Amino acid sequence: MISEDPRPGTTVETEIVSFDGGTSVQRNDRVATEEPLEIRLRAGMQTRTVAITMRTPGADFELAAGFLFNEGVLAALDDLAGITYCLDGEVAEEQRYNIVNVDLRGGELPPLDALERHFTTTSACGVCGKANIEALHARGLSPIRSALRVDAATLAALPERLVSAQRVFASTGGLHAAALFDARGELVTVREDVGRHNALDKLIGWALMNGKLPLDEHLLLLSGRASYELVQKAICAGMAVVCAVSAPSSLAVDLAREFGVTLAGFLRKPRFNVYTGAERISPFPVR
Amino acid sequence: MISEDPRPGTTVETEIVSFDGGTSVQRNDRVATEEPLEIRLRAGMQTRTVAITMRTPGADFELAAGFLFNEGVLAALDDLAGITYCLDGEVAEEQRYNIVNVDLRGGELPPLDALERHFTTTSACGVCGKANIEALHARGLSPIRSALRVDAATLAALPERLVSAQRVFASTGGLHAAALFDARGELVTVREDVGRHNALDKLIGWALMNGKLPLDEHLLLLSGRASYELVQKAICAGMAVVCAVSAPSSLAVDLAREFGVTLAGFLRKPRFNVYTGAERISPFPVR
Repeated sequence: MISEDPRPGTTVETEIVSFDGGTSVQRNDRVATEEPLEIRLRAGMQTRTVAITMRTPGADFELAAGFLFNEGVLAALDDLAGITYCLDGEVAEEQRYNIVNVDLRGGELPPLDALERHFTTTSACGVCGKANIEALHARGLSPIRSALRVDAATLAALPERLVSAQRVFASTGGLHAAALFDARGELVTVREDVGRHNALDKLIGWALMNGKLPLDEHLLLLSGRASYELVQKAICAGMAVVCAVSAPSSLAVDLAREFGVTLAGFLRKPRFNVYTGAERISPFPVR
Repeated sequence: MISEDPRPGTTVETEIVSFDGGTSVQRNDRVATEEPLEIRLRAGMQTRTVAITMRTPGADFELAAGFLFNEGVLAALDDLAGITYCLDGEVAEEQRYNIVNVDLRGGELPPLDALERHFTTTSACGVCGKANIEALHARGLSPIRSALRVDAATLAALPERLVSAQRVFASTGGLHAAALFDARGELVTVREDVGRHNALDKLIGWALMNGKLPLDEHLLLLSGRASYELVQKAICAGMAVVCAVSAPSSLAVDLAREFGVTLAGFLRKPRFNVYTGAERISPFPVR
């Protein structure tokens, strides 16, 4: 993925393999950028990190202001002295534009007990996507080694199989699903939740409690988008093939590539896109 | 919403007003349950709350096990001595089945520094949806007072207006959107993000920084589902009408009702459903 402006863009270009029935072609596409943003609150001589959220760059100051307002830290615009990117020398180049300093007019930080729990990642591993990925290696996660091969037609058919399965026990249309299939596309089990991370945690918890890990011979289908967090969970479970009905984020693609996961998106039979790891899918190589 | 089994179900029945062109009818529908789950880790004499997540009840033990495995706290099934609901006398009735105890085989809790940041809500307000809503009153949030009235036809047309607007500056199909419209359905502004909570924070941050709060004369459209967290943010901004392209959760409906917000879902022109606050929409009353 290429970026010239030091500030990350809203989307990044990436090379994909586009499958359509029996053919596949390589082309460029764009995916939404996903990078962490650390929000630091400053008042008087005090500085405190109050949130780290995975976000799409752009409107970062609005994001910080809106988050703090919605959490009750900012009661009005008057409380705000200014918002700036943290471009200190201490901040590594790839972390620039991923940290904002929010300066309050008051001389002291407000009570932040409730707020300090809104983290989706930790600053221990640095506030940039690359550092997050490196931290997973440090945690002992290994690249996926799986001889799994799968037919393009099998992948393309997964969403309709999920819909049939969901029809049985869902009645609201309001749930995210994480579904596990075997290599021939037979549904093994599915878990649902209002939170897509929870649906996948449930699925992997089922596998753990039933002695089925690692899931390196299975296919995962996510009912919505594929984010960094979801691909990370799939890697924990040893999954080699992750498919999403909708789009992946930039960091999901980077993470999948780094750990040897096949990541497919936009499954719309007979078409889908593969963002990395297309060699597991036949027909391949590309024509 | 009615529940007989003390354990919350995956969906709950709720009364809605279903609009279709110039008519509206009252009927019952089901929405996905959203309730907090607190995950407590126990080893030897130690107990620690390691996560509170908004989830759909069901497969709670799998959720806890999968979450802890994916976070590296459980390396294998052998680490696990058992998982139970916390049904102690100290736990209020409505919080039962919202707390799980995960017992580890080892005599001590593992290091949890990274983990303890995975909270989407705080236990200070009690681990049940009702307590969360009460805590918002305690925080000083007031019910929405707005004389806003809106035509059903205006609401039904919002999604296509959002799609036209998104086409201008989105190219990935991978982004959630939060869009602000005036009462006649004219787009004011839109913000996008890989995280839907971020998209709404950005939108409200924009309003704060431009002196436009409260947004009590505007319409909010969310590109996906409406969760508790999103409705909460809308209330912070004083919004009277919240619309979602897809389904709301049970707790989103409860919260909207409690704070006098009109909550509409499944906007599919000329149809949509209204879960609470239908009196702001004409034609009404129901025929």
